[in-house]
Amino acid sequence: MIDDLSFLENNQKRIEKALNKALPNKSYSNITEAIHYSVMDGGKRIRPQLVYLVADSLDLDLKDETIDAMAAAGELIHCYSLIHDDLPAMDDDDLRRGKPSCHIKFGEASAILAGDAIQPLALEIITDIEDPKLSADTKIKIISTFSKACGPFGMVEGQNRDIKSENSEISIDELDMIHALKTGKLISACVHATCLLKEDLPESDMSTFIKFSECIGLAFQIKDDILDCTSSTEDLGKPAHSDEYLKKNTYPKLIGVEESLARADSLCEEAIKCLKSLPYKTEKLIKLSKFIVERNN
Amino acid sequence: MIDDLSFLENNQKRIEKALNKALPNKSYSNITEAIHYSVMDGGKRIRPQLVYLVADSLDLDLKDETIDAMAAAGELIHCYSLIHDDLPAMDDDDLRRGKPSCHIKFGEASAILAGDAIQPLALEIITDIEDPKLSADTKIKIISTFSKACGPFGMVEGQNRDIKSENSEISIDELDMIHALKTGKLISACVHATCLLKEDLPESDMSTFIKFSECIGLAFQIKDDILDCTSSTEDLGKPAHSDEYLKKNTYPKLIGVEESLARADSLCEEAIKCLKSLPYKTEKLIKLSKFIVERNN
Repeated sequence: MIDDLSFLENNQKRIEKALNKALPNKSYSNITEAIHYSVMDGGKRIRPQLVYLVADSLDLDLKDETIDAMAAAGELIHCYSLIHDDLPAMDDDDLRRGKPSCHIKFGEASAILAGDAIQPLALEIITDIEDPKLSADTKIKIISTFSKACGPFGMVEGQNRDIKSENSEISIDELDMIHALKTGKLISACVHATCLLKEDLPESDMSTFIKFSECIGLAFQIKDDILDCTSSTEDLGKPAHSDEYLKKNTYPKLIGVEESLARADSLCEEAIKCLKSLPYKTEKLIKLSKFIVERNN
Repeated sequence: MIDDLSFLENNQKRIEKALNKALPNKSYSNITEAIHYSVMDGGKRIRPQLVYLVADSLDLDLKDETIDAMAAAGELIHCYSLIHDDLPAMDDDDLRRGKPSCHIKFGEASAILAGDAIQPLALEIITDIEDPKLSADTKIKIISTFSKACGPFGMVEGQNRDIKSENSEISIDELDMIHALKTGKLISACVHATCLLKEDLPESDMSTFIKFSECIGLAFQIKDDILDCTSSTEDLGKPAHSDEYLKKNTYPKLIGVEESLARADSLCEEAIKCLKSLPYKTEKLIKLSKFIVERNN
């Protein structure tokens, strides 16, 4: 039986619209042009999907625009990190989602500046939410959650460890930690921040949602690694085997494709177990979780 | 008559302590080490001085730690921008305040990541303020003010225009605009954000404070340009004439040293006129303004 995944498509359309609305005027400068180029590029929008579906499951009494802002903030932070990760001094990737990377298209200085500008833009979107049912206290907690995810103990440290581990052999625990920081922190922040929108959410349910996000975040990354080593460049929209070329540590390299797949499946099962234990409408989140490990690109 | 400027020294000690407290554990990673290296480097701390002295003039009924947090946030954003500005793809400066630039000392990837991590850290400091007399609404306004200053229409666009204007002749109006964006936006944000701490401050006084900050921000930049072309590398702690070498547009290059000095003086006078028109204790801000245009490094 094939799951009906049309809600994913609807959310995808919704986030494209929300991002487009959140971005500065494209024609203002080469930087705003670079921002549009890098953000409006047909990414998978997994972080917004999580925001929309967690919000959905919690039956939030808030404006649609408030949820859009949260989804856009999470995705923008992700987009900024991709622009900087692709830089020559970092992963030196010339291709991103089938198109020249930001620094190839606009030059290195513009790419650095575009990333630098997107990060505060993401937080500004939260400060600018106008929703009488969203308290300033909650906004502060949301901004704190996103800021911490971006800071020296979050995403930045994941990328740092990833770069430093190139050309050296690391353990599977170390690889888990790299991705918990690099991918996991922001994915968790998206789920955590969305949970904060429900001010009376019990602490233990919040923890379960966060535990879910950690499992699905790692499963997503493992699946990415597997696709990177088994797909063609055309399917992937980025240079296939680029991680291998960089002598990066990946799950398939460390434990083989078979075991990597099993690990992704098992993390997905754990994620679904969390969702099923929650007294909310988590069916769509369960479908998304399955989609994340079953996708082909 | 020589002004007593000991309050500047006291504030300097205060900000060094506040920054040190705000920074993540230095020994956590090469990134946190790079952050400490770049932040704790004996800069002039003009932005914190403005925060402390505006706060002082307004007689704020808030904790000292709250003002420290504001001063640290403004300075951290400045420090992040310096790290990125020095990168090879940007201004390619090997020396900063008499020491190797962050990317020379720690490598380019670490410097990009250190800057990336400092930016959200600055905003996190604001979210983390614990002061019963500071409302969450005001915190949101402060974060919004700092975020906008960092965004695509603020500091980033100033650096963008600065780089793009290299090797081409621009008008004095264009140079003013570059610096209004590159230096001015953050300096104004520091003053603006500090004014927000006084919730009953009349709109017109706020505007006057902001007008003051715009004048003194530009005066500061002109003085910087003058020092850059008249001082030795030793005095300056960065390569003297580096702007000239890059074929950058500077005030002395466009209108000569004499006229640049006159312009800085006139902007300083305008700044002081704003301060004198305000019904607050602005004497120390007046002394700081004079110091900014009279300093030798």
